[in-house]
Parts: sequence; structure tokens; C-alpha cells
Amino acid sequence: MEGKIMKSQFIVDIQSDISNNPVTILGWCKGKRCHKKIVFLDLCDSTGSIQVTVDQQKVPIDEFEIARLITCESAVRVEGIVRREGKNNQNQTEILCSKLQLINKATGLISPKLREDIDIFNPHLAEHLLNHRSLYIRNPKVMAILRFRHILMGFVHQWFREHQFIEITAPILTPLPLYDDRSAIEVNIHDDHVFLTQCVGFYLEAAVHAFERVYNIGPSFRGEESHSKRHLMEYWHIKAEIAFGNREDIIAIVEELVSFLVSQCANFCQDVAKALGTDICIDGLTPPFPRISYREAIQRLQTAGQEATFGKSLCSKGEGLLAQQFSTPFWVVGIPRSIEPFPYVIDPDDLEVTMTADLVASKGYGELLGVAEKIHTSDILAERMREKGKQDNPKYEWVRELREFGCVPHIGFGMGVERFIRWLLQIPHVRDAIPFPRIFRRKIHP
Amino acid sequence: MEGKIMKSQFIVDIQSDISNNPVTILGWCKGKRCHKKIVFLDLCDSTGSIQVTVDQQKVPIDEFEIARLITCESAVRVEGIVRREGKNNQNQTEILCSKLQLINKATGLISPKLREDIDIFNPHLAEHLLNHRSLYIRNPKVMAILRFRHILMGFVHQWFREHQFIEITAPILTPLPLYDDRSAIEVNIHDDHVFLTQCVGFYLEAAVHAFERVYNIGPSFRGEESHSKRHLMEYWHIKAEIAFGNREDIIAIVEELVSFLVSQCANFCQDVAKALGTDICIDGLTPPFPRISYREAIQRLQTAGQEATFGKSLCSKGEGLLAQQFSTPFWVVGIPRSIEPFPYVIDPDDLEVTMTADLVASKGYGELLGVAEKIHTSDILAERMREKGKQDNPKYEWVRELREFGCVPHIGFGMGVERFIRWLLQIPHVRDAIPFPRIFRRKIHP
Repeated sequence: MEGKIMKSQFIVDIQSDISNNPVTILGWCKGKRCHKKIVFLDLCDSTGSIQVTVDQQKVPIDEFEIARLITCESAVRVEGIVRREGKNNQNQTEILCSKLQLINKATGLISPKLREDIDIFNPHLAEHLLNHRSLYIRNPKVMAILRFRHILMGFVHQWFREHQFIEITAPILTPLPLYDDRSAIEVNIHDDHVFLTQCVGFYLEAAVHAFERVYNIGPSFRGEESHSKRHLMEYWHIKAEIAFGNREDIIAIVEELVSFLVSQCANFCQDVAKALGTDICIDGLTPPFPRISYREAIQRLQTAGQEATFGKSLCSKGEGLLAQQFSTPFWVVGIPRSIEPFPYVIDPDDLEVTMTADLVASKGYGELLGVAEKIHTSDILAERMREKGKQDNPKYEWVRELREFGCVPHIGFGMGVERFIRWLLQIPHVRDAIPFPRIFRRKIHP
Repeated sequence: MEGKIMKSQFIVDIQSDISNNPVTILGWCKGKRCHKKIVFLDLCDSTGSIQVTVDQQKVPIDEFEIARLITCESAVRVEGIVRREGKNNQNQTEILCSKLQLINKATGLISPKLREDIDIFNPHLAEHLLNHRSLYIRNPKVMAILRFRHILMGFVHQWFREHQFIEITAPILTPLPLYDDRSAIEVNIHDDHVFLTQCVGFYLEAAVHAFERVYNIGPSFRGEESHSKRHLMEYWHIKAEIAFGNREDIIAIVEELVSFLVSQCANFCQDVAKALGTDICIDGLTPPFPRISYREAIQRLQTAGQEATFGKSLCSKGEGLLAQQFSTPFWVVGIPRSIEPFPYVIDPDDLEVTMTADLVASKGYGELLGVAEKIHTSDILAERMREKGKQDNPKYEWVRELREFGCVPHIGFGMGVERFIRWLLQIPHVRDAIPFPRIFRRKIHP
């Protein structure tokens, strides 16, 4: 992949090189220290950073002037020799510069500096960093999180594909946002009033009758008001659906997936976590995870003096309290029918709850994902649609129709990518787990 | 991944099994032939189909009745023995049924049958198939295309990741849809008027200043009127951006990617193409691909008596005519500045055109993708923004600001997934290359 001006050398490759070979690095200046006859530049690229020594006696005078006057973030081309720096040949290399060219001088001023080692989670910095996300994406900690996301998503695809799941790219524009239309974001296209998907479950339910195992990784949208640390208006959603299965199956599948992802990240991403000053959370390494019923969860919270009412979602405070009782993620089994969408199966042994389970993270990071058995017969679905006031809505006709064509018991789960990252990296807010976050009531920018 | 009711046996696995082992298959009945004392069922699952012989003397009477009365698409559980069928032990296996259970009887009627071998590209069937896409996703040809898409996207991720690209999931909701706002789909969220992305280029331009090589696979939206065979309102877009490069670099990168994808698909997807009655188009196997300038393209079309005007896009008819002159995909180099967005570099040797190139498919399938050099200096960008009337629009301020922080020469390309599939599989319309197509002026359903 060599072209006319493309980079062929990266800082990471030359850091271990002590052969005094000539190198050429294209990159950015992230700092300098000027002495009388020598300038030290901190040069970085996507792979790391290295000191460049610009000696007045070893470069033309105009190039020394470039070094002396260079501004932070200026893009440069550096030629030189790699050598060990300092006493005792310590594990530190530098480039002794023989040629310095300015690619583009940075004229913009911003504070803190873009690549500075700052606390990106500091709430006082949040607005500033969000407003200039297009620049602070260069920050080493921001980069570490996004690189982690990249690696994690590779493992997710790998797992599904190795387990014979077919990737379905279900639509974003939909008449059926699954949950309450009022919390969906509406789009009007030539007077066709549709929504941005909240969940692609309906489409995957159709697809399992072809492929049996399908998954979908794509954006989901929620318009509801929320200013918690685990909600975004636009987030990425891992969804999967499997034909011929029940709740035990989907719990086992999810436990295998979570354990695989935790294990892979723990094995391959410790350097990323180190850049953040954290460790990968490995609480999810060893399934099976403990379970409590939703009913029991409510009781435990009430016993602890928490406000908790049957038929309401466990709030994040409640989930945090429960999490103190477990050292791993745990399942809350049997969410009430009153708060679950109509396609979910009712528990035959407890008609007030559904055949669902939510996996709640350890350490108080809250709900990670939910699993459910889906209704496969037309009459039972129609009954649940009536219960939810959707029986006369022609938009849902194709969902009911699916049940007339050999619909089989099927199961699914959905997990927010950013919540999973937040938990694994133990970072405060989901907004840091996505390149350009969209946050409720915050003007969309950049 | 064994659970309580999950499948452990698939038809593809038992087709080569002649060991007379007992098997259990969960699947769907796609046809039957009733004789007096014997019923032949065509049983299928996601992996294939097999004949099931239900002999009145070998199953309880109620199970024989199930077989006799079974409807198309009914879901069943079949136990039996696998055996070679017919004379001479030909390569044909069947299941001799010992137990037949109905999982869900299909009561719906639809014609043509869902899994029938029909011509899914027949224009007379198009509306019917689109209206019932959630059911016809089970059609073997539809499944073949979607399975191909799944495999292809795996290769796309593989190529980028092996070439050190970082996957960036850029936002869908954006104030900056890149092209003309009028052709973008608007969304109003709490009085914040934004758009669905048409292209994530701006975000990737920011990201390359961190990661140098980034890619994005996600949905893109176009609101413009088009009823061609190569436009969708919602399509999937492969975008990549690279720091430190020029047009020659991006052409070389794209040629390597296209050649890799064609080669992989030709090697691993011939069975998918066979299911469609086609071959994988391998015209893109061997780069470099020929180039003509946009100016020359216009001249050639005018010479051929075609209407073609400098400063207008080559229409699909024009691209088709040009394609007759090549046996491979070909580059049209230097698209006029008047029709390209402001971030693209102007050709210093021909100020009327940009440093861009479009790759046009062989065999008349039209434009596949476009590449461009992007402007990296603030003053030149400001000039181009004035030219496009965007200089006073504060929405674009962060795009200009990026040029003040050491912006480097960078390059990018964008390719529509469905167009690429259409060409490789030589199918008529992009709508068949996506699970649930969204088409201009067609009510969104299902």
C-alpha cells in the first residue's frame, strides 16, 4: 500500500530500532523544549511519540528556525537517525534530526492542549471537550477508548461469525420503533411519518425464519429525556435473534458471548486500559452468572429502605445497591409484563411477568443487556397487542402475519455497545465510549 | 451453545451422513407429496433441504395425519434415520421419519410460496415481494444474496483491520450532511434541526488526525428523488480516510481493496452465485484499472451522439456507454469543481476540476465509488466554502477550525455496499442487496 506521499514508517516501529538507520516520520508536534542551540520536539503519530533532537549544528538554519518557532499540533516531516538517548542506554529512543519540514503550521489556540495527558472525565471540562470533540479525538485517552471500541467490535463480529450467525443490516427508518412511539424520534419523509429505529427486533424476528441465527450491529435512537451516565440519544446496538430456543438458551448464549469478550479484552487490551489508568473489568469472565428474580430484587431494595415498586424499572440507584451483593454481573429474571413490549412471552408460572432477563453489570454500572423469549403464535400475540393497545394499528399487521407462517419459538437479546465499554473500562459516562456523542437536549455539534 | 430446546443438528450436516444414525431436525415444511400410505415432506432449515419420508406403518396414526394435512411453511420437529434414497445409492439422502411433531402450523396463504424457486427479479413481482419482504426473506435467492452480503462485509472488515485501519462509528444525526442540505433528510429533535448523514467524511477527516487510517461502515441517507436501479433512500456506506496521501495513493488503496474483495468472493462465494443462477463478476480482479479523464469521458459520449455536458454528472446511460469500451472497472478522473463538495482539492493543472476520481463498474453497473484528496489548509478551504456559499454558515466552523490544528494532506473514498453487491452478483437492482430496502416515494413498509 505504498503511494506517492504515503507514510511508510511509524513511530512504534522505530522505537525498538537501535540500528542507527535513517528514518522519515510524518507526524505532529505535541510539545517542544528550546535551548540555545538545541530544540527538543515531541513528535507523535497514531502509533506513539518520540523525542526529536534538532541540533543547530546539524540542520540548515531555516530548519532550526522552524523547530524554534513551531507551534503545538503543527504537522511536520522529520528525517533523521534513531539512537538511544541518555545514560546507560536506557529504554528510550530519540530521533537525531537531519531534515525538518513543516507540512502545516498550526495557528489555532486551544487549552488544554489536544494531546495533553488530562483528566478527560473531569466534569468541569466536559462541555469544552464535547464542543471540540473533533479536535480532542487526538487526546491519548480518547484515542485509547476508541481504539478499545474498535478492537472490541472486532471480537463481537468474530464471535457471531464463528457461531454461524448471519449479519443482517436491518433498517434505521421504520414505522415500528418497537417501544412506545412517543419516545421514538420521528422523521417525516414526503409525508410518510416514520421513526428512527429503537430496536431492530421485529426485523430480526422475520430473518430468523430464514437464517435461524442472525445478528445486527447498528445505530439505535432514543428520544426520551435522560441525563444519566448511561443514556445516549444515538448509540450502537448489538442485537441477535435465534430460532428454536428458550430463555435458558439465550442466557447461556449471552453468558458465553460476554465471557468471550471479557476474556479477549483482558488478554489483548491491557495496554489500552493502562493508557486510561484503569484495568479491564474482568468480573464477567466466568459464567454462569447469579440470578435473582425481579420480584426478589424489588423485595431486597424495599428491605434496604429503597423506593422500589413492582411494575417499574429498577432505577440505576437500585441496580447499584443490588450490585453490592454480587461480585459478578447478575441476572434479574422475569421483568413485569406491564413494562415489556408485546412480543415477549408471558411466564406461564407467573402471569405478571415475562420470560425475560436483564443482565446487570457489577460495580454499579447498571443494566448491560436484556434477553427475551418471543411469542410465536398468532392468537397469543394478538392478545398481547390488545393489552398494549396496538391491536387496531395496521402498522403492526406484518408482525402478526409472521406468526401465521410457521413462526417458531425464538429468542433474542440486545446490548448497548457504549454501556458495555463503560463497564469494561470502568469509565464514568457512555458519552466517552462513542466517537461523536449525541446527548439529550444538547445541541448536536460537532 | 446447547440449551434446553435449541437445535443441535442441521440439514447440511446430515446430508453427507450415511451412517444410519438417528437424527432430530427442527425446520419448516416447504412442500409435500401425498400418496396413500406414504407422505414425502420437503423439510428445510437455514442450511438446506432434505426429503422426509413419512410411512404410515412407521409412525403413529396421529403423526401420519399431521404429515397428510401439513401446510406449507409449518414448523416441525422430525426424528428419524438418515438413509440414501433411490437406486444405485445416488448422492441423495432422506430421513425416514420415526416421529413427527408440529411446532406451529402455518395458516397464512401467500403466492408464490415463500421458499419457491421463483424469479425474484421479475418486475411484475416486485411490489408483492417488497410488501411481504418480511416473509420472502426466506426465499432461497433472497437468502443467497443476503448471505453473500454477510460474507462480503466480513471480508471488508478483515481488509481494513489487517491494514491497520481503526473503525470509527461516526454519527447518523448531524448538522452537516456534506452535500446539498436540500437532498438530505431532515430531523427535528427538540427544535434542533439536523439531518441524517449523507456521508461521514467530515468526522473521518477529524479522526485521521488521531488514527491516520480510519474506516466507517454505517447507514447513509439520501432524500433526493431517484427511481434508478442504483439508488436507495437508506443504504450502507463504506467510508475510509487516510492521513498523508494524495490521489495516487487512494487510487492504489481502493484498487487493492476491490481486487481483494473480488478475489475472496470469487474463491468463497461461488455457491451463493450458483443459487442465483449467476457467476461472481471478476472484472475487478486485476488492477491497475484503466483511467480516462472526466473531460475525455464527456468527449467520448458527445462523439457517440450522447447528451453530455461538462459540469454535469455522467448519467447512468453515459456510464453504460463508456463501460462498453472497457472490460474492467475504470476510473473517471477529475470531476468538475462545480459538482463536487467544498473540501475536495482543486487540480492545480486544471482549475476546473478536482483531485477526485470515480470508479465505474464494468458491464454497465455504473459508479461504484469515489475517491478524493481533501483540502488541508484553512485559507484554501475558506475560499472553496465561499465558492459554495457556505462561508457564513457557523455550522461549518469546526470543519474550518480543523485546518488550523496541523491538518495534513488526506484522502478518502466512499462506496455504497449495495452497488458493489449488485455489480459482483450481476443483479438488476440495489434494492435486492439489502434486507429491508427503503425506496424513494415508496411508503416505508415493512
